[in-house]
Amino acid sequence: MRIPILKLNQYLLITIQVDLDDKTALQFQEDLLEKIHETGAKGVVIDLTSVDMIDSFIAKVLGDVVRMSNLMGAKVVLTGIQPAVAITLIDLGIMMKNVPTALDLEQGLEKLQQELGG
Amino acid sequence: MRIPILKLNQYLLITIQVDLDDKTALQFQEDLLEKIHETGAKGVVIDLTSVDMIDSFIAKVLGDVVRMSNLMGAKVVLTGIQPAVAITLIDLGIMMKNVPTALDLEQGLEKLQQELGG
Repeated sequence: MRIPILKLNQYLLITIQVDLDDKTALQFQEDLLEKIHETGAKGVVIDLTSVDMIDSFIAKVLGDVVRMSNLMGAKVVLTGIQPAVAITLIDLGIMMKNVPTALDLEQGLEKLQQELGG
Repeated sequence: MRIPILKLNQYLLITIQVDLDDKTALQFQEDLLEKIHETGAKGVVIDLTSVDMIDSFIAKVLGDVVRMSNLMGAKVVLTGIQPAVAITLIDLGIMMKNVPTALDLEQGLEKLQQELGG
């Protein structure tokens, strides 16, 4: 399955609603970069509200996608990381370095607007 | 599984990424009405970009949810209906009467803004 990527003005919006397996995650990475290229989006919000579990591979893919998007000129914010997911990430020693996060979609878009405005 | 409902300013945003079975659809109906009550949202966009198939029961539930939300004071727009889904709906004689639709999320939000402004 493919994760749908919605366009909202100059932003892209992705709500991940399935537990990501490795193949889906890599497909998503590719799709998102294509979409940034195609739309010229300035910012991306990836919402993880419905994700119950992130393992080290998925965390790496998400970290990579943030850095790749930055290279292409689009800022990315991850939102809606569940308490249990945050606990697991830290317990496993998985650091999502330099990955901007926010509580929810609303605050994620605000963060993007601040970063793009500044 | 439950369909996540995101809040974006005065709007609620739902992207349905699974083929809805009857139970999930009814749960979604209940969740959405609760969320409208809780947040006081003025408008709702339900994006169906990733839905490949809608049967008559699901069409009825979606139609009902639009009318129920209207009763509670929130406008609803359905967006991203796939060509194949549109063909099936008409072929089956399923009319989604008085259900506002738009091409994509962007145009759906515009439509809501127009309706709420007017």
